[in-house]
Amino acid sequence: MASEAGAEEASDTYSEFLQQVQRLSNVNQAGGVLAWDQEVMMPEGGTPARSKQRSALSTLSHELLTSDEMAEMLDELEGEDLTAEQEAVVREVRRRHDRAARVPQDLVEEISEVSSEAMPVWKEAREEDDFESFAPTLEKLVELKREYAEHIDPDRDPYEVLFEDYEPYLGIETAEQVLQRLRDELVPLVEAVRESDADLAVDTFEGEYDTDTQEDLARDVLDTLGYDWDHGRLDTAPHPFSTGNQFDARVTTRFNEADPLGALMSTIHEFGHATYTLGLPREDYGTPLGESRDMTVHESQSRLWENHVGRSEPFWERFLPTMRERFPEKLDDASVADVYEAANQVYEDNLIRVEADELTYHMHIVVRFEIERDLIRGDIDVEDVPELWNDKYEEYLGVRPDSDAEGCLQDIHWSHGDFGYFPTYSLGSVLAAQLYASAEADIDDLDGKIAEGDFEPLHDWLTENVHRHGSRYTTDDLVREATGEDYTADYFLDYVTSKYGDLYDLDDYQ
Amino acid sequence: MASEAGAEEASDTYSEFLQQVQRLSNVNQAGGVLAWDQEVMMPEGGTPARSKQRSALSTLSHELLTSDEMAEMLDELEGEDLTAEQEAVVREVRRRHDRAARVPQDLVEEISEVSSEAMPVWKEAREEDDFESFAPTLEKLVELKREYAEHIDPDRDPYEVLFEDYEPYLGIETAEQVLQRLRDELVPLVEAVRESDADLAVDTFEGEYDTDTQEDLARDVLDTLGYDWDHGRLDTAPHPFSTGNQFDARVTTRFNEADPLGALMSTIHEFGHATYTLGLPREDYGTPLGESRDMTVHESQSRLWENHVGRSEPFWERFLPTMRERFPEKLDDASVADVYEAANQVYEDNLIRVEADELTYHMHIVVRFEIERDLIRGDIDVEDVPELWNDKYEEYLGVRPDSDAEGCLQDIHWSHGDFGYFPTYSLGSVLAAQLYASAEADIDDLDGKIAEGDFEPLHDWLTENVHRHGSRYTTDDLVREATGEDYTADYFLDYVTSKYGDLYDLDDYQ
Repeated sequence: MASEAGAEEASDTYSEFLQQVQRLSNVNQAGGVLAWDQEVMMPEGGTPARSKQRSALSTLSHELLTSDEMAEMLDELEGEDLTAEQEAVVREVRRRHDRAARVPQDLVEEISEVSSEAMPVWKEAREEDDFESFAPTLEKLVELKREYAEHIDPDRDPYEVLFEDYEPYLGIETAEQVLQRLRDELVPLVEAVRESDADLAVDTFEGEYDTDTQEDLARDVLDTLGYDWDHGRLDTAPHPFSTGNQFDARVTTRFNEADPLGALMSTIHEFGHATYTLGLPREDYGTPLGESRDMTVHESQSRLWENHVGRSEPFWERFLPTMRERFPEKLDDASVADVYEAANQVYEDNLIRVEADELTYHMHIVVRFEIERDLIRGDIDVEDVPELWNDKYEEYLGVRPDSDAEGCLQDIHWSHGDFGYFPTYSLGSVLAAQLYASAEADIDDLDGKIAEGDFEPLHDWLTENVHRHGSRYTTDDLVREATGEDYTADYFLDYVTSKYGDLYDLDDYQ
Repeated sequence: MASEAGAEEASDTYSEFLQQVQRLSNVNQAGGVLAWDQEVMMPEGGTPARSKQRSALSTLSHELLTSDEMAEMLDELEGEDLTAEQEAVVREVRRRHDRAARVPQDLVEEISEVSSEAMPVWKEAREEDDFESFAPTLEKLVELKREYAEHIDPDRDPYEVLFEDYEPYLGIETAEQVLQRLRDELVPLVEAVRESDADLAVDTFEGEYDTDTQEDLARDVLDTLGYDWDHGRLDTAPHPFSTGNQFDARVTTRFNEADPLGALMSTIHEFGHATYTLGLPREDYGTPLGESRDMTVHESQSRLWENHVGRSEPFWERFLPTMRERFPEKLDDASVADVYEAANQVYEDNLIRVEADELTYHMHIVVRFEIERDLIRGDIDVEDVPELWNDKYEEYLGVRPDSDAEGCLQDIHWSHGDFGYFPTYSLGSVLAAQLYASAEADIDDLDGKIAEGDFEPLHDWLTENVHRHGSRYTTDDLVREATGEDYTADYFLDYVTSKYGDLYDLDDYQ
């Protein structure tokens, strides 16, 4: 196991380097605490001061990362004889340093300012269903992010460069191939589902569920899955998220009276993120060896727990009695099969990504991916976005938005300048299926264990094969280490094909 | 009014200096958020990471304050023609810079480490009533803090130097004179109270008070006093405190089933701190003009609200009906006079500072002050502390502790290395009385307004005369600005003499 990134056998330069890296990491962690507090605890009037505090920490972090001292140490270390772990630390810091150092501070600040200003513009445009009013801002952001990518690497496709901010190692080609394959295989599967006569118990959770009791139930589910309350907490936030480190990984969720399943699944999703963070090696806190791999791997952990566990029959064998206790009159007649059907129904005409089922979800992503890629590459113009969006929804999902509010204005990401982020949602789901298949192969009767509420073998498997490695391996190497295979969409496609083939009695898919 | 510390008419050096000062302030503010979170929200297991985050921010803050760049800018600015406000900013930063720059980083770190280690040692010593086991640690801390003081100024009394960490401007001589005067005048007053036959309604609050309802009542009292919830929040913490800035000033309190008055007074006390913070000028956030004056002034604000408002008859005329509504059966027969007597009773044989009444409190402080001063000056040895402590309690308070746990081991301060802090509690109370007398003279029928729940005139007076000045004036100048007089204990002694003379029917004191 990594121990202090092998500092005991390190050169003076490496020790000094590691100290700077830890300092940088602590400043970033402090920024994370300020962000959590702002979302969850801060009174609204605190914003002006908090913005300045966060911006001061960002600037300090940027300066520490891009300092001449850091550049010199990195150069020096690349000539030294390092252990594999030390090399991994240098690799990760080098990558971050190079990217940060190449982009002029002015541009970083301009992007940050324009995105801050974009948020309310986007919000109002969505409320008013007025894409035109958002278009100039979007155009500016596309321009700035292209410029940003050009500074990092003028010789490569700018979308590829941006994508690497969120997933640095899988490669844009893999991403494109996987998304293409999802599109090719899921479009006909969704069509078959739509044509199916299967009558699922979609009304199982109908009714009103008191939100205080839902919160008790969210705590129950975290207890059941084995959340470590000594190192975490649960709060509510309008946009659920998870944040922290291996000593303190917190979860947020939200409640809706009409949708108890939504809150539960969101809680399990964030638990998946948090349990990854808690599985990182404690002795490597503050270095890349003690930090999670990027978005694809993180999202694989949340999706694995949400979809492969939380939406499975064995899980509900364990958890339905608990939910019945909390809501005695509501679910007395519901069977595990009913809950399973309700939790996995494919919606007929859903236009909204965050409300999508596990199957159509990826078509929402493919639409966004194709549009943002072409925008950044300069192959399409901002003004073409609404029409393209609607055409693609019609083609891939069989539904056409009536408005841009329910169409291309629904997500916040582009208003943050986050181009290249969307694909990692699908890449993470795909990896979740691959990892889960591997865990199932290694763990004797995993279903049976889950049905009994014994989640320890799954936790152990994930810690052993994913969490404890931190960022020691690149994403692709980590997948090979964990599963013995290259990253592949095979398992995901097998999983959805068989799951939805069964659920919807699809002859061609069983 | 101060506006951006006059930056619009500032030299380039001043503007650059101000930017560094703001950055430093933001790092310190971020540290404050991390500290609040650790006390109030953080799961216990988060400690190892949080300690490192806070230590990284402290080091960065220290580096920003003591950097060569800062030293050069300060030197340059002292030759420039500055506005009065700019001069105040330079004065405050110069003082902090000089103190921080003179103490070697090694010593700062050693003090921080030894204090961290001292905490559990002190705790166990207190639990076991074993002063001997704490003595070597205390000796080490005394030694280190003397060394620290010598670095700052080898030519001055080290206790004086330490005292200035908490109150830089009033001067140790004033502090000594005031404490001496409190001792000389309060010892006989306490004796007279003890001998009085007056029969106060000390049992008014007897019984058990549900702590959830107490929390509702704490929110009521904050509403009543005019706490701005858009810029604050209330939580519970084992050791109540207040923290933040003019945009976000938070309060904590604690509840005890048997002591509803304690929780209320603690809440009002912390409200006093928070309302000072919220009254600081917003446009000067991040500079000394937007930061509170030191401990004496801060404590004057908490004591003013706690003692002069919260323990007054007019306040209870307004608030008793509210408390009766929350606790309908408990207080139906209690009159305002009963509550006033219960809230101001002088305890017969209390040994514990934090449980002391408004009168004996200062004798607790005098004991600590005399002992820590003599320790730091080298006039007494650590081993003499328990005996001296007990003798002084007997002399000043007429009670002798049976154990060191209830004697010299009761407070946490010395285990933190905080020598010189205690006097500011009394100096703050003294200033509270002086300010309140001045407010009473300026505000027509202040008592009547308070009885009607109209706290705005008092808020306005404090904001106008104290809060809005931030650290523009030194403590002594601020007192003169606010009251037209030098800092004096006259008002405090008048106040307690008349208050307790009346309460206890003391012929010599009415």
